[in-house]
Amino acid sequence: MRVEILCTGDEILTGKTINTNYSHMAQRLGDVGLTVHWGTTVGDDRASLLQAFRQAGERADAVIVNGGLGPTVDDLSQEVAAEACGVELVLSDYWMTRMTESYARRGRVMPPNNRKQAMLPANAEFIDNPIGTACGFAVTIGQARFFFTPGVPREMRRMLDEQVIPRLLKLGGITGVTRLKRFHSFGIGESRADNMLADMEVFKNGGDIKLGFQAHYPQLETKLAVHGENEADLLARLAPVEAEVRKRLGNFIIAEDDQTLEGVILATLLERGHTLSTAEMFSGGHLAARLAPLAGAEHVFRRGIVARDPGELGINGVSTEAAESVGRTLRKESGASHALALLIELDAGADRPDFGGTICVGIADTRATVSRQARLIGGRDWVRAGAVELGLDCLRRHLLGLPVDERIDFERR
Amino acid sequence: MRVEILCTGDEILTGKTINTNYSHMAQRLGDVGLTVHWGTTVGDDRASLLQAFRQAGERADAVIVNGGLGPTVDDLSQEVAAEACGVELVLSDYWMTRMTESYARRGRVMPPNNRKQAMLPANAEFIDNPIGTACGFAVTIGQARFFFTPGVPREMRRMLDEQVIPRLLKLGGITGVTRLKRFHSFGIGESRADNMLADMEVFKNGGDIKLGFQAHYPQLETKLAVHGENEADLLARLAPVEAEVRKRLGNFIIAEDDQTLEGVILATLLERGHTLSTAEMFSGGHLAARLAPLAGAEHVFRRGIVARDPGELGINGVSTEAAESVGRTLRKESGASHALALLIELDAGADRPDFGGTICVGIADTRATVSRQARLIGGRDWVRAGAVELGLDCLRRHLLGLPVDERIDFERR
Repeated sequence: MRVEILCTGDEILTGKTINTNYSHMAQRLGDVGLTVHWGTTVGDDRASLLQAFRQAGERADAVIVNGGLGPTVDDLSQEVAAEACGVELVLSDYWMTRMTESYARRGRVMPPNNRKQAMLPANAEFIDNPIGTACGFAVTIGQARFFFTPGVPREMRRMLDEQVIPRLLKLGGITGVTRLKRFHSFGIGESRADNMLADMEVFKNGGDIKLGFQAHYPQLETKLAVHGENEADLLARLAPVEAEVRKRLGNFIIAEDDQTLEGVILATLLERGHTLSTAEMFSGGHLAARLAPLAGAEHVFRRGIVARDPGELGINGVSTEAAESVGRTLRKESGASHALALLIELDAGADRPDFGGTICVGIADTRATVSRQARLIGGRDWVRAGAVELGLDCLRRHLLGLPVDERIDFERR
Repeated sequence: MRVEILCTGDEILTGKTINTNYSHMAQRLGDVGLTVHWGTTVGDDRASLLQAFRQAGERADAVIVNGGLGPTVDDLSQEVAAEACGVELVLSDYWMTRMTESYARRGRVMPPNNRKQAMLPANAEFIDNPIGTACGFAVTIGQARFFFTPGVPREMRRMLDEQVIPRLLKLGGITGVTRLKRFHSFGIGESRADNMLADMEVFKNGGDIKLGFQAHYPQLETKLAVHGENEADLLARLAPVEAEVRKRLGNFIIAEDDQTLEGVILATLLERGHTLSTAEMFSGGHLAARLAPLAGAEHVFRRGIVARDPGELGINGVSTEAAESVGRTLRKESGASHALALLIELDAGADRPDFGGTICVGIADTRATVSRQARLIGGRDWVRAGAVELGLDCLRRHLLGLPVDERIDFERR
């Protein structure tokens, strides 16, 4: 079944409001095994709405329209839906009564322009909105069933889950389940990850499972999308592929699904009753900011030191020896079981695309001190983001007993 | 001129990634006087892309396509653009050389699949990407000129400003000059700012200058868009309005145009030869991270302390007295001329929309200590973001001799 989402409103069209309603709707549909094939955004403009309804009505089996159900003159969804259907708008006595009663319960009189919200296309199927004055409705335009939902996020979310999704599943005769398995990695770029996985039969054209990547520097997300008849069938097909991907990406996998790198580190430290202090130069608090604010970090995070001058950390310059020394001293002084030191020696001169820095990471625990050096380039912000990730990843690797100095793609030597 | 934006990619279509590229592009176009009429989102799917290109080519004069220029098999923009134009893909020797050299400069060999990024439709106009391997290009499909841009935000943003917008303005025959004057404020919401400015004649219907707002919590951006025949005409009309807005928003203005709050603070400290240390709880490094990494901060930023436990800062709990005490001690110990302490006492229990915290800010300098308390609500992340902004704004106000405790809109008392 081809499902489309059509978002309306000048605020969305002009970019003033970021369209989080769209992403919420598309994700919820994906969760229940429905695929969104097309998204459209148009403003509060009669001609655009009519054209958008007609074009979607030709392409899709079902369309969710969001917004334009409010009481003001720029809310046009009902009017244009009626026009597209070739029917009149008719007052819903039921909805007028519901709105009037709802205002009365709060000791208020309904403003006259709310009447507009009870005007529905004559052929519309009524869809309830238990928490707002914008009622939903469904009509057929072209070959598609259109579901009209309010723009207010909490009203849209409830109507989507309780009213629209059940109707869509019925319409699509959908059985079965869908899963998106995600691996987060650090140290390999999209092309390298693609090379590492592309020869797996299951990903080839028409294969069983769809492989996708998403780069959010410095991390890369590797995604496996799979549909199954039922949970057991899905898991049976996903399990071996998942295991193979995990094996191939190996030590570079920093987290899976909803996990984060910092979450994995925090969970490991918490589980072992460890505590952590950090010291950083140039990253200026970005390292601490990944860990210290997390729920649970109050049991783990001891002290973060942010400095711009090596002298402030008791060292003369940036080196792996200095990073180890800062780690050892900080661990002792703060009484933490672990200390992570992230030092950066920046290139001289103004920021530029090939501006770089030398990163030295030092980790001290009760038994040993390890360190790692790497050179990153790409401008100040890029180097800083890469350095923070490198520091955190070294700590993860150290905690998990993996090599801390495996070469990464972003690194120059 | 009718301009459309066409975003491609499964991660956008499925709602996994919130489409901030769209809102950025639409806003930037609005800023220079171009209006977006239609937005489309399709996935990494050949048939959908072709249909979307053709439909947009019938509706629009210009279309910006975003995404699908990467090196992997699911990046289809060039291929489908060539198909829509009825031409072949041709290797751009120029771009191959540029990519190869760029890899070589970083001491790396270009992976073979990057070659795909140098394949452009035979009739394409090349559009430079100085900071990435995805080059842009323009072709004509139907009645519209299509501009293809990379999905990586920083590459898209630069290409949009430097390459695409000038071409669009030329295409639309837009002459004269456009200026967007921006004021960044902290502490006033959009409705209050609107009330403070809306009665100015110049903003009324058909007025000379267009007033707009954009909330990026915790900051608000107030924008004046003005179009003039030439620079002198534009400045003559803008200057008195700019002055009046500056007067009305008053102390709440933290920065203008490309300035940032942290940049203003740093510049003030640098100019006076001052130095700064910071201490923070719960914000976990986010305060330091706003200042310490900036270019120039090496002359100003002495020491940042990040703690989760009041004991780590030598205090028993969170209060204005404690904040002042932390400030005084830190200033002395670190040898800085100024110290900023940001303490947060969080509500108990799990995160929720009305989860709040009590913020205490203390500032010490060579002459005095000042403090300020405020209660913010809105969930952990919201409180943290608001607290960091409040701390920085107090420091700005203190440095500029403004009252540090002016009531802000986000505050509950």
